[in-house]
Amino acid sequence: MRLKLTISYDGTHYAGWQIQKNAVTIQQIIEEACQKLFSQEIKVTGASRTDAGVHALGQIATIDVDTSIKAEQLPYALNAHLPNDIVIRSTRVMPANFHPRYQAVSKTYNYRIFNDCFPDPLTKHFMYFYHKKLDVEAMKKAASCFVGEYDFKAFCSTGSSVNSTVREVYHCQVDQDNKTITLRINGNGFLYNMVRIIAGTLIDVGLGKINPNSIASIIRSKDRNQAGPTAPALGLCLEAIQYSKS
Amino acid sequence: MRLKLTISYDGTHYAGWQIQKNAVTIQQIIEEACQKLFSQEIKVTGASRTDAGVHALGQIATIDVDTSIKAEQLPYALNAHLPNDIVIRSTRVMPANFHPRYQAVSKTYNYRIFNDCFPDPLTKHFMYFYHKKLDVEAMKKAASCFVGEYDFKAFCSTGSSVNSTVREVYHCQVDQDNKTITLRINGNGFLYNMVRIIAGTLIDVGLGKINPNSIASIIRSKDRNQAGPTAPALGLCLEAIQYSKS
Repeated sequence: MRLKLTISYDGTHYAGWQIQKNAVTIQQIIEEACQKLFSQEIKVTGASRTDAGVHALGQIATIDVDTSIKAEQLPYALNAHLPNDIVIRSTRVMPANFHPRYQAVSKTYNYRIFNDCFPDPLTKHFMYFYHKKLDVEAMKKAASCFVGEYDFKAFCSTGSSVNSTVREVYHCQVDQDNKTITLRINGNGFLYNMVRIIAGTLIDVGLGKINPNSIASIIRSKDRNQAGPTAPALGLCLEAIQYSKS
Repeated sequence: MRLKLTISYDGTHYAGWQIQKNAVTIQQIIEEACQKLFSQEIKVTGASRTDAGVHALGQIATIDVDTSIKAEQLPYALNAHLPNDIVIRSTRVMPANFHPRYQAVSKTYNYRIFNDCFPDPLTKHFMYFYHKKLDVEAMKKAASCFVGEYDFKAFCSTGSSVNSTVREVYHCQVDQDNKTITLRINGNGFLYNMVRIIAGTLIDVGLGKINPNSIASIIRSKDRNQAGPTAPALGLCLEAIQYSKS
Protein backbone atom coordinates (compact mmCIF):
# COMPACT_ATOMS: atom_id res chain seq x y z
CA MET A 1 0.00 0.00 0.00
CA ARG A 2 1.01 3.61 -0.54
CA LEU A 3 1.63 5.65 2.58
CA LYS A 4 1.85 9.43 2.77
CA LEU A 5 4.32 10.69 5.39
CA THR A 6 4.30 14.22 6.83
CA ILE A 7 7.83 15.05 7.95
CA SER A 8 9.49 17.81 9.99
CA TYR A 9 13.24 18.27 10.01
CA ASP A 10 16.03 20.53 11.11
CA GLY A 11 18.07 20.68 7.90
CA THR A 12 21.20 22.12 9.55
CA HIS A 13 23.28 18.97 9.44
CA TYR A 14 22.11 17.56 6.09
CA ALA A 15 23.09 18.07 2.47
CA GLY A 16 19.41 18.62 1.64
CA TRP A 17 16.56 16.23 0.91
CA GLN A 18 17.68 14.30 -2.13
CA ILE A 19 20.03 11.32 -1.98
CA GLN A 20 23.53 12.00 -3.26
CA LYS A 21 26.93 10.41 -3.13
CA ASN A 22 29.37 11.36 -0.37
CA ALA A 23 26.88 13.40 1.68
CA VAL A 24 24.19 12.58 4.22
CA THR A 25 20.68 13.56 3.13
CA ILE A 26 17.24 13.45 4.73
CA GLN A 27 15.79 11.11 2.10
CA GLN A 28 18.63 8.66 2.75
CA ILE A 29 18.16 8.71 6.54
CA ILE A 30 14.41 8.06 6.16
CA GLU A 31 15.04 5.23 3.67
CA GLU A 32 17.48 3.68 6.15
CA ALA A 33 14.89 3.98 8.94
CA CYS A 34 12.26 2.31 6.71
CA GLN A 35 14.69 -0.46 5.86
CA LYS A 36 15.34 -1.12 9.55
CA LEU A 37 11.63 -1.12 10.40
CA PHE A 38 10.32 -3.15 7.45
CA SER A 39 13.44 -5.28 6.81
CA GLN A 40 13.30 -4.50 3.10
CA GLU A 41 14.55 -1.83 0.74
CA ILE A 42 12.12 1.07 0.58
CA LYS A 43 12.20 4.00 -1.84
CA VAL A 44 11.04 7.31 -0.35
CA THR A 45 9.55 9.79 -2.86
CA GLY A 46 9.51 13.37 -1.62
CA ALA A 47 7.32 16.26 -2.75
CA SER A 48 10.02 18.91 -2.53
CA ARG A 49 13.80 18.69 -2.94
CA THR A 50 14.82 21.06 -0.18
CA ASP A 51 18.42 22.30 -0.34
CA ALA A 52 21.20 21.83 2.18
CA GLY A 53 20.39 23.69 5.40
CA VAL A 54 16.72 24.24 4.54
CA HIS A 55 14.19 23.10 7.17
CA ALA A 56 10.73 21.59 6.95
CA LEU A 57 7.67 21.51 9.14
CA GLY A 58 5.49 19.69 6.61
CA GLN A 59 7.50 17.94 3.92
CA ILE A 60 5.41 15.21 2.24
CA ALA A 61 6.75 11.90 0.99
CA THR A 62 5.38 8.49 0.04
CA ILE A 63 6.54 4.93 0.55
CA ASP A 64 5.10 1.68 -0.80
CA VAL A 65 5.06 -1.08 1.78
CA ASP A 66 2.81 -3.83 3.06
CA THR A 67 2.78 -3.83 6.80
CA SER A 68 0.52 -4.91 9.62
CA ILE A 69 1.45 -1.82 11.65
CA LYS A 70 -1.52 0.57 11.72
CA ALA A 71 -1.01 3.92 9.96
CA GLU A 72 -1.52 5.88 13.18
CA GLN A 73 1.17 3.81 14.95
CA LEU A 74 3.70 4.06 12.10
CA PRO A 75 5.10 7.51 13.04
CA TYR A 76 6.11 6.15 16.47
CA ALA A 77 7.67 3.05 14.89
CA LEU A 78 9.58 5.07 12.28
CA ASN A 79 10.67 7.83 14.70
CA ALA A 80 12.26 5.14 16.87
CA HIS A 81 14.73 4.58 14.01
CA LEU A 82 15.27 8.27 13.20
CA PRO A 83 17.66 10.83 14.74
CA ASN A 84 15.90 13.59 16.69
CA ASP A 85 16.33 16.19 13.92
CA ILE A 86 13.96 14.27 11.62
CA VAL A 87 10.41 13.54 12.84
CA ILE A 88 7.56 11.75 11.07
CA ARG A 89 4.44 13.65 12.19
CA SER A 90 1.75 11.54 10.52
CA THR A 91 1.18 8.60 8.20
CA ARG A 92 -1.86 8.05 6.02
CA VAL A 93 -2.88 5.33 3.58
CA MET A 94 -3.40 6.80 0.07
CA PRO A 95 -4.65 5.50 -3.28
CA ALA A 96 -1.92 3.62 -5.18
CA ASN A 97 -1.69 6.38 -7.81
CA PHE A 98 -1.13 9.22 -5.32
CA HIS A 99 2.07 11.12 -6.14
CA PRO A 100 3.39 13.64 -3.58
CA ARG A 101 4.95 15.96 -6.17
CA TYR A 102 2.65 15.78 -9.20
CA GLN A 103 -0.55 15.99 -7.20
CA ALA A 104 0.49 18.86 -4.96
CA VAL A 105 -1.87 21.80 -5.47
CA SER A 106 0.30 24.37 -3.71
CA LYS A 107 3.22 24.74 -1.33
CA THR A 108 3.80 27.14 1.54
CA TYR A 109 7.29 28.30 2.53
CA ASN A 110 8.41 30.77 5.12
CA TYR A 111 11.67 32.70 5.27
CA ARG A 112 12.69 34.23 8.59
CA ILE A 113 15.14 37.04 9.20
CA PHE A 114 16.49 38.05 12.62
CA ASN A 115 17.04 41.79 12.23
CA ASP A 116 19.13 43.18 15.07
CA CYS A 117 22.64 44.52 15.76
CA PHE A 118 23.74 41.16 17.18
CA PRO A 119 22.79 37.58 16.30
CA ASP A 120 20.44 35.56 18.47
CA PRO A 121 22.10 32.30 19.63
CA LEU A 122 18.68 30.67 20.16
CA THR A 123 17.58 30.99 16.54
CA LYS A 124 20.93 30.95 14.76
CA HIS A 125 20.15 27.80 12.73
CA PHE A 126 16.57 28.81 11.86
CA MET A 127 16.68 32.49 10.99
CA TYR A 128 18.97 34.52 8.77
CA PHE A 129 20.72 37.09 10.95
CA TYR A 130 20.85 40.43 9.22
CA HIS A 131 22.38 43.35 11.12
CA LYS A 132 21.45 46.34 8.94
CA LYS A 133 18.14 48.03 9.73
CA LEU A 134 15.43 46.99 7.25
CA ASP A 135 12.42 49.07 6.20
CA VAL A 136 9.69 46.50 6.83
CA GLU A 137 6.88 48.66 5.41
CA ALA A 138 8.68 48.81 2.06
CA MET A 139 9.22 45.03 2.22
CA LYS A 140 5.50 44.47 2.88
CA LYS A 141 4.58 46.58 -0.12
CA ALA A 142 7.08 44.78 -2.37
CA ALA A 143 5.93 41.32 -1.18
CA SER A 144 2.39 41.93 -2.41
CA CYS A 145 3.74 42.50 -5.97
CA PHE A 146 4.73 38.83 -6.27
CA VAL A 147 1.11 37.66 -6.11
CA GLY A 148 -0.15 36.52 -9.52
CA GLU A 149 0.76 34.28 -12.44
CA TYR A 150 4.06 35.40 -13.92
CA ASP A 151 7.12 34.13 -15.69
CA PHE A 152 9.46 34.13 -12.67
CA LYS A 153 12.64 33.51 -14.70
CA ALA A 154 14.31 36.50 -12.98
CA PHE A 155 13.80 34.63 -9.68
CA CYS A 156 15.32 31.30 -10.75
CA SER A 157 18.95 30.29 -10.24
CA THR A 158 20.78 29.83 -13.50
CA GLY A 159 21.65 26.27 -14.43
CA SER A 160 18.19 24.98 -13.60
CA SER A 161 16.41 23.23 -16.46
CA VAL A 162 12.63 23.36 -16.39
CA ASN A 163 10.13 23.40 -19.25
CA SER A 164 8.40 26.52 -18.06
CA THR A 165 9.36 29.27 -15.62
CA VAL A 166 5.73 30.39 -15.24
CA ARG A 167 4.35 29.94 -11.73
CA GLU A 168 1.41 31.35 -9.83
CA VAL A 169 1.91 32.90 -6.39
CA TYR A 170 -1.35 32.93 -4.40
CA HIS A 171 -0.13 34.64 -1.27
CA CYS A 172 3.04 36.56 -0.38
CA GLN A 173 3.25 38.51 2.84
CA VAL A 174 5.86 40.02 5.14
CA ASP A 175 5.19 40.33 8.88
CA GLN A 176 7.25 41.65 11.75
CA ASP A 177 7.24 40.44 15.33
CA ASN A 178 9.78 42.39 17.34
CA LYS A 179 13.17 41.56 15.73
CA THR A 180 11.85 38.73 13.55
CA ILE A 181 10.77 39.48 9.98
CA THR A 182 8.85 36.62 8.35
CA LEU A 183 8.10 36.19 4.66
CA ARG A 184 5.30 33.67 4.04
CA ILE A 185 4.63 32.62 0.47
CA ASN A 186 2.19 30.18 -1.08
CA GLY A 187 2.06 29.22 -4.74
CA ASN A 188 1.37 26.39 -7.17
CA GLY A 189 5.10 25.70 -7.47
CA PHE A 190 8.48 27.34 -7.03
CA LEU A 191 11.51 27.50 -9.31
CA TYR A 192 14.96 26.55 -8.09
CA ASN A 193 15.92 29.00 -5.29
CA MET A 194 12.85 31.14 -6.09
CA VAL A 195 11.83 31.75 -2.46
CA ARG A 196 15.41 32.53 -1.43
CA ILE A 197 15.82 34.99 -4.33
CA ILE A 198 12.51 36.65 -3.43
CA ALA A 199 13.75 36.88 0.19
CA GLY A 200 17.08 38.36 -0.98
CA THR A 201 15.22 40.84 -3.19
CA LEU A 202 12.98 41.87 -0.29
CA ILE A 203 16.07 42.46 1.86
CA ASP A 204 17.40 44.76 -0.89
CA VAL A 205 14.03 46.53 -0.79
CA GLY A 206 14.35 46.83 3.01
CA LEU A 207 17.79 48.41 2.52
CA GLY A 208 16.43 50.92 -0.01
CA LYS A 209 18.54 49.40 -2.81
CA ILE A 210 15.43 48.31 -4.73
CA ASN A 211 12.25 50.38 -4.90
CA PRO A 212 9.12 48.36 -4.04
CA ASN A 213 7.48 49.83 -7.14
CA SER A 214 10.06 48.20 -9.39
CA ILE A 215 9.24 44.57 -8.46
CA ALA A 216 6.81 44.30 -11.40
CA SER A 217 9.45 45.44 -13.87
CA ILE A 218 12.07 43.09 -12.37
CA ILE A 219 9.63 40.21 -12.93
CA ARG A 220 8.99 41.42 -16.51
CA SER A 221 12.74 41.66 -17.22
CA LYS A 222 13.12 37.85 -16.80
CA ASP A 223 16.71 38.75 -15.94
CA ARG A 224 18.24 37.09 -12.87
CA ASN A 225 20.66 40.02 -12.52
CA GLN A 226 17.80 42.45 -11.93
CA ALA A 227 16.64 40.59 -8.80
CA GLY A 228 18.43 40.60 -5.44
CA PRO A 229 20.85 37.97 -4.12
CA THR A 230 19.87 34.44 -3.07
CA ALA A 231 19.26 34.65 0.69
CA PRO A 232 21.01 31.93 2.77
CA ALA A 233 19.35 28.51 3.08
CA LEU A 234 19.07 28.43 6.89
CA GLY A 235 16.23 31.02 6.96
CA LEU A 236 14.01 28.90 4.70
CA CYS A 237 11.41 26.43 5.90
CA LEU A 238 8.98 24.30 3.88
CA GLU A 239 5.89 24.87 5.99
CA ALA A 240 3.20 22.79 4.29
CA ILE A 241 2.09 21.22 1.02
CA GLN A 242 -1.56 21.35 0.01
CA TYR A 243 -3.44 18.63 -1.93
CA SER A 244 -6.96 18.67 -3.28
CA LYS A 245 -9.53 16.90 -1.13
CA SER A 246 -10.55 14.49 -3.91
CA MET B 1 35.97 50.90 35.05
CA ARG B 2 32.98 48.64 35.67
CA LEU B 3 31.20 47.41 32.56
CA LYS B 4 27.73 45.88 32.47
CA LEU B 5 27.35 43.18 29.80
CA THR B 6 24.00 41.98 28.43
CA ILE B 7 24.44 38.41 27.23
CA SER B 8 22.36 35.92 25.18
CA TYR B 9 23.27 32.25 25.07
CA ASP B 10 22.12 28.87 23.91
CA GLY B 11 22.80 26.85 27.06
CA THR B 12 22.51 23.45 25.34
CA HIS B 13 26.21 22.62 25.31
CA TYR B 14 27.21 24.15 28.65
CA ALA B 15 27.21 22.96 32.24
CA GLY B 16 25.42 26.17 33.22
CA TRP B 17 26.66 29.68 33.98
CA GLN B 18 28.95 29.25 36.95
CA ILE B 19 32.57 28.12 36.64
CA GLN B 20 33.21 24.58 37.84
CA LYS B 21 35.91 21.96 37.55
CA ASN B 22 35.78 19.40 34.72
CA ALA B 23 32.95 21.07 32.81
CA VAL B 24 32.67 23.92 30.35
CA THR B 25 30.55 26.82 31.58
CA ILE B 26 29.37 30.11 30.09
CA GLN B 27 31.11 32.24 32.71
CA GLN B 28 34.39 30.47 31.92
CA ILE B 29 34.05 30.98 28.14
CA ILE B 30 33.36 34.70 28.63
CA GLU B 31 36.29 35.06 31.03
CA GLU B 32 38.53 33.40 28.44
CA ALA B 33 37.24 35.77 25.73
CA CYS B 34 37.94 38.77 28.01
CA GLN B 35 41.42 37.47 28.74
CA LYS B 36 42.14 37.18 24.99
CA LEU B 37 40.80 40.66 24.26
CA PHE B 38 42.32 42.53 27.21
CA SER B 39 45.45 40.37 27.70
CA GLN B 40 44.81 40.14 31.42
CA GLU B 41 42.83 37.95 33.81
CA ILE B 42 39.25 39.20 34.10
CA LYS B 43 36.65 38.04 36.60
CA VAL B 44 33.09 37.98 35.23
CA THR B 45 30.32 38.43 37.83
CA GLY B 46 26.91 37.21 36.68
CA ALA B 47 23.47 38.21 37.95
CA SER B 48 21.95 34.76 37.71
CA ARG B 49 23.52 31.30 37.97
CA THR B 50 21.57 29.55 35.25
CA ASP B 51 21.69 25.75 35.32
CA ALA B 52 23.05 23.38 32.69
CA GLY B 53 20.91 23.55 29.53
CA VAL B 54 19.11 26.76 30.54
CA HIS B 55 19.20 29.58 27.96
CA ALA B 56 19.38 33.36 28.26
CA LEU B 57 18.28 36.29 26.17
CA GLY B 58 19.30 38.91 28.73
CA GLN B 59 21.75 37.60 31.32
CA ILE B 60 23.61 40.47 33.00
CA ALA B 61 27.23 40.39 34.13
CA THR B 62 29.95 42.84 35.05
CA ILE B 63 33.67 43.04 34.43
CA ASP B 64 36.24 45.51 35.74
CA VAL B 65 38.73 46.58 33.12
CA ASP B 66 40.45 49.70 31.83
CA THR B 67 40.31 49.80 28.07
CA SER B 68 40.43 52.37 25.32
CA ILE B 69 37.79 50.45 23.33
CA LYS B 70 34.51 52.37 23.41
CA ALA B 71 31.63 50.68 25.24
CA GLU B 72 29.51 50.50 22.05
CA GLN B 73 32.33 48.76 20.18
CA LEU B 74 33.10 46.27 22.95
CA PRO B 75 30.33 43.76 22.06
CA TYR B 76 31.85 43.35 18.57
CA ALA B 77 35.36 42.97 20.00
CA LEU B 78 34.24 40.41 22.60
CA ASN B 79 31.96 38.46 20.21
CA ALA B 80 34.96 37.98 17.93
CA HIS B 81 36.46 35.82 20.70
CA LEU B 82 33.23 33.96 21.57
CA PRO B 83 31.62 30.87 20.01
CA ASN B 84 28.35 31.60 18.18
CA ASP B 85 26.18 30.20 20.98
CA ILE B 86 27.22 33.05 23.32
CA VAL B 87 26.59 36.64 22.21
CA ILE B 88 27.32 39.91 24.03
CA ARG B 89 24.40 42.19 23.06
CA SER B 90 25.47 45.40 24.76
CA THR B 91 28.09 46.92 27.05
CA ARG B 92 27.61 49.91 29.29
CA VAL B 93 29.86 51.77 31.70
CA MET B 94 28.42 51.65 35.24
CA PRO B 95 29.30 53.22 38.62
CA ALA B 96 32.09 51.29 40.38
CA ASN B 97 29.66 50.03 43.08
CA PHE B 98 27.14 48.54 40.62
CA HIS B 99 26.54 44.87 41.39
CA PRO B 100 24.56 42.79 38.83
CA ARG B 101 23.03 40.46 41.43
CA TYR B 102 22.49 42.60 44.52
CA GLN B 103 21.08 45.56 42.62
CA ALA B 104 18.69 43.62 40.41
CA VAL B 105 15.12 44.79 41.08
CA SER B 106 13.43 41.87 39.31
CA LYS B 107 14.05 39.06 36.85
CA THR B 108 11.92 37.72 34.02
CA TYR B 109 12.04 34.09 32.94
CA ASN B 110 10.04 32.20 30.38
CA TYR B 111 9.40 28.48 30.18
CA ARG B 112 8.22 27.06 26.86
CA ILE B 113 6.43 23.78 26.24
CA PHE B 114 5.87 22.24 22.80
CA ASN B 115 2.58 20.39 23.26
CA ASP B 116 1.91 18.00 20.39
CA CYS B 117 1.90 14.27 19.60
CA PHE B 118 5.38 14.47 18.08
CA PRO B 119 8.42 16.60 18.90
CA ASP B 120 9.39 19.59 16.76
CA PRO B 121 12.97 19.23 15.46
CA LEU B 122 13.27 23.01 15.00
CA THR B 123 12.72 23.84 18.67
CA LYS B 124 14.00 20.68 20.34
CA HIS B 125 16.72 22.47 22.32
CA PHE B 126 14.56 25.45 23.34
CA MET B 127 11.19 24.02 24.29
CA TYR B 128 10.17 21.10 26.48
CA PHE B 129 8.33 18.60 24.29
CA TYR B 130 5.29 17.25 26.11
CA HIS B 131 3.05 14.83 24.24
CA LYS B 132 0.00 14.59 26.50
CA LYS B 133 -2.77 17.10 25.84
CA LEU B 134 -2.68 19.95 28.39
CA ASP B 135 -5.67 22.00 29.60
CA VAL B 136 -4.25 25.47 29.00
CA GLU B 137 -7.22 27.29 30.55
CA ALA B 138 -6.61 25.48 33.84
CA MET B 139 -2.89 26.33 33.59
CA LYS B 140 -3.71 30.02 33.04
CA LYS B 141 -5.91 30.06 36.12
CA ALA B 142 -3.25 28.31 38.23
CA ALA B 143 -0.47 30.63 37.00
CA SER B 144 -2.28 33.69 38.37
CA CYS B 145 -2.20 32.15 41.87
CA PHE B 146 1.58 32.53 42.08
CA VAL B 147 1.40 36.33 42.00
CA GLY B 148 2.11 37.84 45.41
CA GLU B 149 4.64 37.73 48.24
CA TYR B 150 4.81 34.22 49.65
CA ASP B 151 7.13 31.76 51.28
CA PHE B 152 7.88 29.64 48.19
CA LYS B 153 9.63 26.85 50.11
CA ALA B 154 7.38 24.27 48.39
CA PHE B 155 8.85 25.47 45.08
CA CYS B 156 12.53 25.22 46.02
CA SER B 157 14.73 22.20 45.36
CA THR B 158 15.92 20.60 48.57
CA GLY B 159 19.60 21.02 49.38
CA SER B 160 19.55 24.73 48.61
CA SER B 161 20.66 26.97 51.49
CA VAL B 162 19.17 30.44 51.55
CA ASN B 163 18.36 32.70 54.49
CA SER B 164 14.78 33.22 53.44
CA THR B 165 12.47 31.41 51.03
CA VAL B 166 10.12 34.39 50.79
CA ARG B 167 9.94 35.94 47.30
CA GLU B 168 7.51 38.22 45.54
CA VAL B 169 6.14 37.28 42.13
CA TYR B 170 4.88 40.35 40.26
CA HIS B 171 3.62 38.68 37.13
CA CYS B 172 2.92 35.06 36.19
CA GLN B 173 1.06 34.23 33.01
CA VAL B 174 0.51 31.30 30.65
CA ASP B 175 -0.15 31.91 26.95
CA GLN B 176 -0.75 29.58 24.06
CA ASP B 177 0.26 30.11 20.44
CA ASN B 178 -0.74 27.07 18.40
CA LYS B 179 1.31 24.17 19.88
CA THR B 180 3.54 26.36 22.03
CA ILE B 181 2.59 27.02 25.66
CA THR B 182 4.64 29.79 27.27
CA LEU B 183 4.89 30.56 30.98
CA ARG B 184 6.28 34.05 31.63
CA ILE B 185 7.13 34.98 35.19
CA ASN B 186 8.60 38.10 36.76
CA GLY B 187 9.58 38.48 40.40
CA ASN B 188 12.05 40.08 42.80
CA GLY B 189 14.02 36.83 42.95
CA PHE B 190 13.67 33.11 42.45
CA LEU B 191 14.67 30.17 44.63
CA TYR B 192 16.74 27.30 43.28
CA ASN B 193 14.71 25.60 40.49
CA MET B 194 11.65 27.69 41.44
CA VAL B 195 10.59 28.50 37.87
CA ARG B 196 11.11 24.90 36.73
CA ILE B 197 9.06 23.58 39.69
CA ILE B 198 6.29 26.09 38.94
CA ALA B 199 6.39 24.95 35.28
CA GLY B 200 6.23 21.29 36.36
CA THR B 201 3.33 22.08 38.70
CA LEU B 202 1.48 23.89 35.90
CA ILE B 203 1.96 20.83 33.66
CA ASP B 204 0.38 18.71 36.42
CA VAL B 205 -2.48 21.23 36.46
CA GLY B 206 -2.77 20.91 32.67
CA LEU B 207 -3.01 17.13 33.07
CA GLY B 208 -5.75 17.43 35.70
CA LYS B 209 -3.51 15.96 38.41
CA ILE B 210 -3.53 19.20 40.40
CA ASN B 211 -6.59 21.43 40.72
CA PRO B 212 -5.82 25.11 39.91
CA ASN B 213 -7.68 26.04 43.11
CA SER B 214 -5.17 24.15 45.25
CA ILE B 215 -2.10 26.23 44.25
CA ALA B 216 -2.61 28.52 47.26
CA SER B 217 -2.67 25.60 49.67
CA ILE B 218 0.40 24.02 48.03
CA ILE B 219 2.24 27.32 48.58
CA ARG B 220 1.03 27.42 52.23
CA SER B 221 2.15 23.81 52.81
CA LYS B 222 5.82 24.82 52.28
CA ASP B 223 6.24 21.15 51.34
CA ARG B 224 8.23 20.40 48.18
CA ASN B 225 6.34 17.10 47.81
CA GLN B 226 3.03 18.91 47.37
CA ALA B 227 4.25 20.74 44.24
CA GLY B 228 4.78 19.13 40.83
CA PRO B 229 8.05 17.82 39.37
CA THR B 230 10.96 20.02 38.27
CA ALA B 231 10.43 20.61 34.54
CA PRO B 232 13.51 19.99 32.34
CA ALA B 233 16.12 22.75 32.00
CA LEU B 234 15.96 23.14 28.20
CA GLY B 235 12.54 24.86 28.31
CA LEU B 236 13.79 27.63 30.57
CA CYS B 237 15.14 30.98 29.40
CA LEU B 238 16.33 33.96 31.45
CA GLU B 239 14.63 36.69 29.47
CA ALA B 240 15.69 39.90 31.19
CA ILE B 241 16.85 41.42 34.45
CA GLN B 242 15.47 44.75 35.59
CA TYR B 243 17.39 47.45 37.50
CA SER B 244 16.15 50.70 38.94
CA LYS B 245 16.84 53.76 36.80
CA SER B 246 18.84 55.53 39.52
